Amino acid sequence: MAYNLLKGKKGIIFGALDEKSIAWKVAERAHEEGAVFTLTNTPTAMRFGEINELAEKCNAVVIPADATNIDDLENLIKKSMEILGGKVDFILHSIGMSMNVRKKRVYNDVKYDYFIKTLDISSLSFHKLLQTCFKFDAINEWGSVVALSYIAAQRVLYGYNDMADAKALLESIARSFGYIYGREKKIRINTISQSPTLTTAGGGVKGISGLMDFTERMSPLGNASAEECANFTIVLFSDLSKKVTMQNIFHDGGFSSMGMSLRAMRMYNRSLDCEDCPDVE
Amino acid sequence: MAYNLLKGKKGIIFGALDEKSIAWKVAERAHEEGAVFTLTNTPTAMRFGEINELAEKCNAVVIPADATNIDDLENLIKKSMEILGGKVDFILHSIGMSMNVRKKRVYNDVKYDYFIKTLDISSLSFHKLLQTCFKFDAINEWGSVVALSYIAAQRVLYGYNDMADAKALLESIARSFGYIYGREKKIRINTISQSPTLTTAGGGVKGISGLMDFTERMSPLGNASAEECANFTIVLFSDLSKKVTMQNIFHDGGFSSMGMSLRAMRMYNRSLDCEDCPDVE
Amino acid sequence: MAYNLLKGKKGIIFGALDEKSIAWKVAERAHEEGAVFTLTNTPTAMRFGEINELAEKCNAVVIPADATNIDDLENLIKKSMEILGGKVDFILHSIGMSMNVRKKRVYNDVKYDYFIKTLDISSLSFHKLLQTCFKFDAINEWGSVVALSYIAAQRVLYGYNDMADAKALLESIARSFGYIYGREKKIRINTISQSPTLTTAGGGVKGISGLMDFTERMSPLGNASAEECANFTIVLFSDLSKKVTMQNIFHDGGFSSMGMSLRAMRMYNRSLDCEDCPDVE
Amino acid sequence: MAYNLLKGKKGIIFGALDEKSIAWKVAERAHEEGAVFTLTNTPTAMRFGEINELAEKCNAVVIPADATNIDDLENLIKKSMEILGGKVDFILHSIGMSMNVRKKRVYNDVKYDYFIKTLDISSLSFHKLLQTCFKFDAINEWGSVVALSYIAAQRVLYGYNDMADAKALLESIARSFGYIYGREKKIRINTISQSPTLTTAGGGVKGISGLMDFTERMSPLGNASAEECANFTIVLFSDLSKKVTMQNIFHDGGFSSMGMSLRAMRMYNRSLDCEDCPDVE
Repeated sequence: MAYNLLKGKKGIIFGALDEKSIAWKVAERAHEEGAVFTLTNTPTAMRFGEINELAEKCNAVVIPADATNIDDLENLIKKSMEILGGKVDFILHSIGMSMNVRKKRVYNDVKYDYFIKTLDISSLSFHKLLQTCFKFDAINEWGSVVALSYIAAQRVLYGYNDMADAKALLESIARSFGYIYGREKKIRINTISQSPTLTTAGGGVKGISGLMDFTERMSPLGNASAEECANFTIVLFSDLSKKVTMQNIFHDGGFSSMGMSLRAMRMYNRSLDCEDCPDVE
Repeated sequence: MAYNLLKGKKGIIFGALDEKSIAWKVAERAHEEGAVFTLTNTPTAMRFGEINELAEKCNAVVIPADATNIDDLENLIKKSMEILGGKVDFILHSIGMSMNVRKKRVYNDVKYDYFIKTLDISSLSFHKLLQTCFKFDAINEWGSVVALSYIAAQRVLYGYNDMADAKALLESIARSFGYIYGREKKIRINTISQSPTLTTAGGGVKGISGLMDFTERMSPLGNASAEECANFTIVLFSDLSKKVTMQNIFHDGGFSSMGMSLRAMRMYNRSLDCEDCPDVE
Repeated sequence: MAYNLLKGKKGIIFGALDEKSIAWKVAERAHEEGAVFTLTNTPTAMRFGEINELAEKCNAVVIPADATNIDDLENLIKKSMEILGGKVDFILHSIGMSMNVRKKRVYNDVKYDYFIKTLDISSLSFHKLLQTCFKFDAINEWGSVVALSYIAAQRVLYGYNDMADAKALLESIARSFGYIYGREKKIRINTISQSPTLTTAGGGVKGISGLMDFTERMSPLGNASAEECANFTIVLFSDLSKKVTMQNIFHDGGFSSMGMSLRAMRMYNRSLDCEDCPDVE
Repeated sequence: MAYNLLKGKKGIIFGALDEKSIAWKVAERAHEEGAVFTLTNTPTAMRFGEINELAEKCNAVVIPADATNIDDLENLIKKSMEILGGKVDFILHSIGMSMNVRKKRVYNDVKYDYFIKTLDISSLSFHKLLQTCFKFDAINEWGSVVALSYIAAQRVLYGYNDMADAKALLESIARSFGYIYGREKKIRINTISQSPTLTTAGGGVKGISGLMDFTERMSPLGNASAEECANFTIVLFSDLSKKVTMQNIFHDGGFSSMGMSLRAMRMYNRSLDCEDCPDVE
């Protein structure tokens, strides 16, 4: 399905690593919906990923950028405006990384250099991007900026570590800058709080498969896929959501509004009823 | 602009009174987006409003129904399925009324017959509609139901009276039934929390113009119009929001995320600084 | 432990059925903390319960009242002021009942007479109580009113049925009336959202034991007991919480802020890993 | 009034600058309630403030510490345990500072060194404190930790700048560490979201007096004072709130639950109605 929802619109998409990435799906869908855009990722991610394949498919230029580096961001913004022939209409921020998670430092024994790096990469990068765009007046009136978040910003999930705090900070930055950018330029800024998704990045989180079974059973519509997330992102980029701003919208099959479902309770109760199962603490 | 977002989809739209109504705008937009639907309102509202004009414009049949009356709802559902040739894909619930507001009973001196009537008309009607649809299996898989709400469900606004409680109940019913309908039929149920809107119905709320100036100045994008609300409603009916359910989404120019804006503070401070103004309590 | 936190304070306590009731524990603790109060419940509840035993222990008079009946409430308020020698300082509302739950009508097949009765008993009774107090100017300045709620007001829990909607309505009424009563009389109104508790009333909810194991494992401090809830209620009645109003405070060992805990995940994963367990849907 | 609520309890109080400080009031009240504790602040704050006067009044030792410095925190924790004769039962974190605010860098033109410093001082310091306590096993079972927050964590207030994001991060850290510390040691961690308060620190925020008039008029009980905040903090340190954890509790006279009050609307409308007032944008 394609509706020409982004016909004539220009954008920048961060964070497409490989075809499992949500950003990858957003790029594919934005292309189908008539948008032109540049793609960006860190040089490292570009080496390991397959972004050039995506770029070819979408007729997009790839501009490497470390999203924590202002010079890189300035270069990205300026080049994007050159290539696209003017200001952009939408931006996707899909960036997150925790060295504490990678190095298996638990939350009560984090390294603070890592913690600040987590915040810089996963949250402040969003502010840096917005401030750079603001400086260059790089977004058209009624443009739309979306960042991807996760319910860990509101509720603690075992093992999500300092990424939870980074997502809370990210959502706060979306609100804070959403006020400024809305007031000054009629530009909206929102976050989408997506179901846990088996991307190459998300796959690294400890115990993700048990959690995904639980969220699948808790969510009346099941976990949302990367494709579905891309569809909803397109909506937030389109002219049909012009007055939605400073919001965090849950795209999660209903998980965030559940306390306990029948299907999850059945699976849980099976463990309770099991007499031969190994003891659990 | 039209995108064929609802091409081939069938629906039922409650609550179009006259061309200021949000439901009216939703009907117009749904028609433009390729949907076919029936329209419904109470016999009284139909007498005072101009729904037949809308029906003609949209090629829609009007079926009168008191949304608190199960027989009426059963008739509406059955006739709609007959006319539309099968199950529906979307429903809009835009219904609310408080006799306590109309009769100027303040919140600490309500009449309880009125209070129950407020809840029955503004909230239970939504449950009755859903239960009737469920009974007749009247909604297709991946169908979408939307009810219109207001931020009074979360925060107290002077003069909104028992309608605030009715909206809180409405949003709860959306969650509760959203779980059942999601689990059983993959159908999603959401509410849109819309800016104060100068509809014929909304216009009756006391002091609405001062409040609307305030919300306009507080919201970085300004108050959302009925047309804009209709656009976002179309999105929630479309296939692009399949995994959003049990949510209350603020469509309000950012108001719900604001504590104090520069523009509202300036207006407020002018009053503070005014030496010749009449005293206020 | 006793601190004289309610020394010289007068109150009314609704809903003590037997010694498992939260209201019972609140009465005991209020007595220990130096308060005098009246007790009330419906005639039926009084017949089945042991409220007279509690009354004796606390030197309290019992005044029967159906909390949905204005005459009964007027009688209760007037008699309480007579007996206690003046206005009251605190009131506990601990009332809830659903005929749909009792008669095993599922949420998508409720009887609407029952639904309205659920709302009348569990939610409107709170408004009726407050409106009656307001009419008789029955609460001292800086008085405190507390109603007991449950997280089902925010999140769907399988089987909680129309009680979820009733709790959402209850919390909204607390906010709405909290504004009026705060503005006019400096009286605060809050709800406490308590862990699932094995009271005689709460015990009737379907599948409560599996759910309580889950919430126990999800909550870092475990489920909160009735005694602990009583302690926190005393705090909200005391002069130490004078500026807390219109809030719903979670007293739940942390459950409301959890997405997934290690301990709950272990129990859940045991079911996932079990090869000999019966199939679950 | 004093109730012996903290009799036998030991603690550490951060952030008392002068007698307007909330932390100062908490120290006075904790002393009255029977606690013993150490006081701490940065060397700079100690030079400008009057903490020694407070220390004398409360029989407390002052231990200077930069809360972003692990060595200082380790020294503080170890010395406190020595002086107090064992583990502590409560800790107050009342720390916040933004160089962007001080240097008048607006939110869309912040300096990122300042931003990280804001987060380090106002938010990460809380994590560092908790991680250091965890490492030295410095808090008794059922101990209580409180940090002071502000509604800017949820809603944008003009001029609050990166402190808003810092408070969102602070509240997230309280939840994240609250899970760990609850699970491992039965220790609770909460934040209190206090009304704007005219402390020496808070007084620096731009336009605070107009805002405080607005919040005073919006809040049905008026703004909460530093003394009142201290009283509620005592409650959270006491044994009466044992099962409240990972919560952000609004202590704000009801402000957070208000959309528009009669009193604020009157003041606002006076500006709307003023014909001789200067124009505002």
